[in-house]
Amino acid sequence: MDSKEYVVGIDIGGTTTSVGFVDRQGSLLAEMVLDTWGAQPAALLVNRVCDAITRLETSLSRGCRLRAIGIGAPNANYHRGTVENPVNLNWGPSTNLVQLFQEHFTVPLAITNDANAAALGELLFGGARGMKDVIVITLGTGLGSGIIVNGGLVYGADGFAGELGHTVVDPAGRFCACGNRGCLETYVSATGLCRTVSELLAERCEPSPLRDICFSQLTSRQVSEAASRGDGIALAAFDKTARILGMKLADAVAHTRPEAIFLAGGLAAAGELLREPATRYMNEFLFGPYKGKVKLLLSAVTEGNGAVRGAAALAWQELAVTTRS
Amino acid sequence: MDSKEYVVGIDIGGTTTSVGFVDRQGSLLAEMVLDTWGAQPAALLVNRVCDAITRLETSLSRGCRLRAIGIGAPNANYHRGTVENPVNLNWGPSTNLVQLFQEHFTVPLAITNDANAAALGELLFGGARGMKDVIVITLGTGLGSGIIVNGGLVYGADGFAGELGHTVVDPAGRFCACGNRGCLETYVSATGLCRTVSELLAERCEPSPLRDICFSQLTSRQVSEAASRGDGIALAAFDKTARILGMKLADAVAHTRPEAIFLAGGLAAAGELLREPATRYMNEFLFGPYKGKVKLLLSAVTEGNGAVRGAAALAWQELAVTTRS
Repeated sequence: MDSKEYVVGIDIGGTTTSVGFVDRQGSLLAEMVLDTWGAQPAALLVNRVCDAITRLETSLSRGCRLRAIGIGAPNANYHRGTVENPVNLNWGPSTNLVQLFQEHFTVPLAITNDANAAALGELLFGGARGMKDVIVITLGTGLGSGIIVNGGLVYGADGFAGELGHTVVDPAGRFCACGNRGCLETYVSATGLCRTVSELLAERCEPSPLRDICFSQLTSRQVSEAASRGDGIALAAFDKTARILGMKLADAVAHTRPEAIFLAGGLAAAGELLREPATRYMNEFLFGPYKGKVKLLLSAVTEGNGAVRGAAALAWQELAVTTRS
Repeated sequence: MDSKEYVVGIDIGGTTTSVGFVDRQGSLLAEMVLDTWGAQPAALLVNRVCDAITRLETSLSRGCRLRAIGIGAPNANYHRGTVENPVNLNWGPSTNLVQLFQEHFTVPLAITNDANAAALGELLFGGARGMKDVIVITLGTGLGSGIIVNGGLVYGADGFAGELGHTVVDPAGRFCACGNRGCLETYVSATGLCRTVSELLAERCEPSPLRDICFSQLTSRQVSEAASRGDGIALAAFDKTARILGMKLADAVAHTRPEAIFLAGGLAAAGELLREPATRYMNEFLFGPYKGKVKLLLSAVTEGNGAVRGAAALAWQELAVTTRS
């Protein structure tokens, strides 16, 4: 437990990639943000990240020791070390990022998808400390999820477990980018909330400033702000979103019975506008023996760079696994 | 790996309780079936089961050694060793069965609910041998489930994880004995199939021998037999049941991504009448990356006494855990 030990957490997004040095307590010691340049080959990004790590190292005091590297990326597979068919990166069907980084480093290295990294971040550094069964839901453009059972992430048979965003709300419902219909993330996500506003603007007659914003310009933050001002359409949109979220979280509880569920990501910034009604609906739909026993909480890792700290949590966990075996 | 070692598997049901001696390969060496007498105190049943074990022991060859005892029971809690609020047993809110048996035996003892025991039976002795991520669905009066992640049963924060029978199909749907509405087991179970037949008899006009059986007398076996003879109502009932099962299994896959899902219990005896269309619907609803990759299979532990062998699997697993620690 040398306090001078640290890991590197790397969060790869479609637009930017963040590199951070994180200690065992989850504190960010140093950080750098790069453009991802997703049209370029992955190897180029790896080289630029390695340069960033070298430069960041000079900012640390002498004697600090790099122990492991963790990477959070879309469509990442922990078992295979790969990023597969990422939507916003022109990397092709499969890129072994772990292998690419291993050409530069000898420390333990692991990759997982961004929602899984967020779940590990919550477990090691956030509100889930001390818990063993947890679900973390990330609400951004889509809905991601990381499921922790008995202290470990659920990866399943192929490393792609935990895709609650694509559970079915309504088989005849909204079209989803995945090709199916009625997926949870078409209702519950920043985008889903805006779609619901659009639906309510058509259904209802009441005036609302949201009628003056075109669909392509509407953001979940605008909906939150309107709701905070008491706008009826915005409040109804949150209520509808919370009801569907609550119903599907009740389903999730019936699977792995977490002690708590955490909401993270952009839409979680709406705070009680979402958490309070979602808790109420979840309890309404929960199977009797679970009612009132599962906490729905806002992520405690949102401050600062949560994604980088999630990737760092993966690194610390990988180090523990490697050391144990 | 002494072949003369055995465990006792005890399956407690509302009507009968089965006691079986099972070896490491899952073979049943001896078995006895008792009336449960659910109106009597649990301690009485425990005494009678102990008597049965003593009598069965005399039928074994000399030198056989009892290593552990596993119990499968409704509403059983692995963590606490209890049976809590069982519907068909007049045992009150909580009975510590493990403690009651420990007064008679010093070997490792464990209890779990019947669906979890079925899942362990499938894992150790059935079609899931060699798999690490599996879901077993038991289709009887209700729908039970046991979820295995990374080789171990998912118990969750309170020992009651894996209640897929109470996930929500339709929040305004059928009334469930649990107090909620639209639970999966009100559609997909022996009882659910019969309810669907009743609904279809009302909806459609075609003649069917099922019109001559009153609701209270109708069994899932009669529906299976009618379907096998090509009865339109029965076939439509299986199709509707399979579609809902397939949709909710797709949801379950999005949680823990099992390698295979097994159907067990009375209604699974319908075989391909259910498995084939449920597989088709499941693949229709599955998230793209999972499509075509998850096997839906019939339990391979149904022959003989599956429930007793499931309880025995729990005993062998408990022995392994105890020996390891």
